[in-house]
Amino acid sequence: MSNRIAAYQDLVVSAEEAAKHVNNGDRVGISGFTGAGYPKALPTAIAEKAKAAHAKGEEFKIDVFSGASTAPDCDGVLAEAEAIRFRTPYNSDPKLREQFNDGTTLYQDIHLSHSGQQVEEGFYGEFHVAIIEAVRILEDGNIIPSSAVGNNLEYIDAADKIIIEVNSWQSEDLQGMHDIYRIEKLPNRQPIPITKPGDRVGTEYIEIPQEKVVAVVETNAPDRNAPFKEPDEVSEKIAANFIEFLEGEVAAGRLDYDKFIMQSGVGNVPNAVMAGLLDSKFENIQAYTEVIQDGMLDLIDAGKMTMASATSFALSPEYADKMNDQADYYAKHIILRPQQVSNHPEVIRRVGLISSNGMIEGDIYGNINSTNVGGSRIMNGTGGSGDFTRNAYISTFVSPSIAKDGAISAIVPFVSHTDHTEHDTMVIITEYGVADLRGLAPKERVEKVISVAHPDYRPLLEEYFERAKENKFIHTPHDLKTAFDFQINFAEKGDMRG
Amino acid sequence: MSNRIAAYQDLVVSAEEAAKHVNNGDRVGISGFTGAGYPKALPTAIAEKAKAAHAKGEEFKIDVFSGASTAPDCDGVLAEAEAIRFRTPYNSDPKLREQFNDGTTLYQDIHLSHSGQQVEEGFYGEFHVAIIEAVRILEDGNIIPSSAVGNNLEYIDAADKIIIEVNSWQSEDLQGMHDIYRIEKLPNRQPIPITKPGDRVGTEYIEIPQEKVVAVVETNAPDRNAPFKEPDEVSEKIAANFIEFLEGEVAAGRLDYDKFIMQSGVGNVPNAVMAGLLDSKFENIQAYTEVIQDGMLDLIDAGKMTMASATSFALSPEYADKMNDQADYYAKHIILRPQQVSNHPEVIRRVGLISSNGMIEGDIYGNINSTNVGGSRIMNGTGGSGDFTRNAYISTFVSPSIAKDGAISAIVPFVSHTDHTEHDTMVIITEYGVADLRGLAPKERVEKVISVAHPDYRPLLEEYFERAKENKFIHTPHDLKTAFDFQINFAEKGDMRG
Repeated sequence: MSNRIAAYQDLVVSAEEAAKHVNNGDRVGISGFTGAGYPKALPTAIAEKAKAAHAKGEEFKIDVFSGASTAPDCDGVLAEAEAIRFRTPYNSDPKLREQFNDGTTLYQDIHLSHSGQQVEEGFYGEFHVAIIEAVRILEDGNIIPSSAVGNNLEYIDAADKIIIEVNSWQSEDLQGMHDIYRIEKLPNRQPIPITKPGDRVGTEYIEIPQEKVVAVVETNAPDRNAPFKEPDEVSEKIAANFIEFLEGEVAAGRLDYDKFIMQSGVGNVPNAVMAGLLDSKFENIQAYTEVIQDGMLDLIDAGKMTMASATSFALSPEYADKMNDQADYYAKHIILRPQQVSNHPEVIRRVGLISSNGMIEGDIYGNINSTNVGGSRIMNGTGGSGDFTRNAYISTFVSPSIAKDGAISAIVPFVSHTDHTEHDTMVIITEYGVADLRGLAPKERVEKVISVAHPDYRPLLEEYFERAKENKFIHTPHDLKTAFDFQINFAEKGDMRG
Repeated sequence: MSNRIAAYQDLVVSAEEAAKHVNNGDRVGISGFTGAGYPKALPTAIAEKAKAAHAKGEEFKIDVFSGASTAPDCDGVLAEAEAIRFRTPYNSDPKLREQFNDGTTLYQDIHLSHSGQQVEEGFYGEFHVAIIEAVRILEDGNIIPSSAVGNNLEYIDAADKIIIEVNSWQSEDLQGMHDIYRIEKLPNRQPIPITKPGDRVGTEYIEIPQEKVVAVVETNAPDRNAPFKEPDEVSEKIAANFIEFLEGEVAAGRLDYDKFIMQSGVGNVPNAVMAGLLDSKFENIQAYTEVIQDGMLDLIDAGKMTMASATSFALSPEYADKMNDQADYYAKHIILRPQQVSNHPEVIRRVGLISSNGMIEGDIYGNINSTNVGGSRIMNGTGGSGDFTRNAYISTFVSPSIAKDGAISAIVPFVSHTDHTEHDTMVIITEYGVADLRGLAPKERVEKVISVAHPDYRPLLEEYFERAKENKFIHTPHDLKTAFDFQINFAEKGDMRG
């Protein structure tokens, strides 16, 4: 038995054995966030159980609650086995996404700072099982979580039974990187005493109610860890525009070179931004964000980033190895928090960060669709983008101006789904420039937004705006009859230009 | 001279004289929130100045920043004189609204908790004049604000020149009711030390930089104070449904009879809710909200409400008189705070309130339009509804199911403007019942939302949903070609039913 298991030794069983605790109809809360820290063995064992039940004509589906997305060996195998009835709060698994969109599986896409609270408050009813990945189990029965904290606290609290997976692939030196602060429940909540990304206010372990632990499973398997892609030319242009925007804020006296606190979504553009920051005048960069990405480790290595606070990793395999090798070093510069804390409106607004998230489409007034293509087809989910956008000092959305070789424009007349409203969007950045919408009435924003659209689409957007201004009421000019023409063209003809 | 003016006596002038400090092109920050506490004399004097300039063919327009809405003798006279170029963050004046909608005046509709911060951070540029109503000027030159605190702190800080209106209509006993807490500026923000609606954490006065004061004007004029309307039958049914919902939360163990903290928009329905609460089992009711309404004074008088925290009054003339007579009594149960504090996401989320706001329309998935009729015609603005909805323990929207004798349905297939997203709306209540959307995937919400629509519209909404489900992708089923048929019908035929 692994020497990482200092308690519950008599509960160590195989994944198959542990899966006996998971039954049809159960609400199951699992660890994991953006492909890190999810259980590696139980999902497959539950999937096998579901398949066996289905083969016998029996029902077997569970409701799965996580921190955010997981991986093929978690959501993927469960989806393949048709074992999920309902999923929340976030997903990026392609197979499961297909089931949301064909109507076989239910998905509630919810702000990541809200999901744990709503579980605590009993909005979903009883929870049956929590399955939590750990780096180790301490002698007192408490655990050191692994590469994501997510909603572990809430699921452990809510569940009747707890299954712990101890993953020896995860570095033991992650111990000390976590800061587990428990937000008190209503009506006794107190201020969260974090004023800077680097403040540590909790414990390094998660307290476990010992009587609930029913099984411990040993694993040795890597996190999902999507391969790193070199930024392409478009991403580099967007990144350059983003950094130019920051420079403008410094010039305007609204930002100092050593006071930039970033939040960043995951992907190519953010990695390009971080590469750009390496060569910038910014120093003492801090992050108060959801996930630690490759580019942040580079910034830390270069001495450019002093502190990054998040709830999980989203690293390439190469950088995951680097983290596992040097976790004790990175623990001086990285804090992993529960996602209620990493994404909490209170702390986000207090620290004053500049948020930066991707989008599916944004409209000429600054409304943003982050989730549903054509209004109906879910991609991943809103994730933490709302938590950060809504409470940021400056909120930005970054996106290539087109997708699918120009068949899709990121700038449209009317978004087909709204995840962020015109009241919340301050800046939209594409490879064509920066549309700074701060302090502007809707009509004043249009020219700026169109200026960052792809040149192919600018005349179409201008035509729409001209037509919209024929409306009797022109506070927010729209022509509802043609507002969705871009999206309808794409659905019918495969190209927004029709 | 009024004995309320203990400093700056040599600066006391007429409104006309004081208006000389306000010039064409100025950014002017004024006190006032929902018709309370706005300057009573300067707006007319500025309007006269504008009219005189216009008569001579000269330009005269200013940018007006307030707390929220004001009154005919403020926004109204300025609009009449065509003296406003740009207005933010909220308005309910009909004349000014007309100018937003005909395109002659610019309006930025923004969350009320965000506006002060964005002024502080310099997003709008320089501020020239602050015009602030006070109950009195203290010997040290500081002031006791009147019936609204709003964004006074931010405008006083930002402006080059300060004009104080001392209004002897306002009760001197308002002194002691305010709690002026100054949120520190970035990057030095600390937790706001409020954990309960009744916590006092600031001063009773607003500090005034004496060197900026250029004029003091004496006034004696009432706040706007819209007359109270007896709740109609529909409002009473909605209120009964709301209270039944609360009872259900108690039964489910998610609320106690003595732990209800309310936030409430202004209007008939909220007043009916408060009347209903008078006869309910709820005790020790508290409010953490924007405005103090008639119904709250009744609840306080009855011993049902122990504490109400807000940033302003919105009282009927009768209740305004009552407040002026007994301000010292009500000061034990009412706190008026700066609107950054009354509407702050940090405090709202911490105290755990149940929000309740009106809407123009909501769609079958729970997206809410609070602002733009038909997507283009601004009514008032989003106000604080987003601040509260987004951070509430439970968010509710309350509305009659129809308007204009049935020509308008409050429930539509697709909202023509989104102020609150499907991720944020938990409960929709009409006279037909309660649609509790918590924990549900989009598709699961539809039946519940349609069940609270007016019976005339239910078949039309069901037809839409059936058509929408023919989409290839049905996470959030939509048929974009007919999504706005309700709104287009209304624009063309005067009835959403076509």
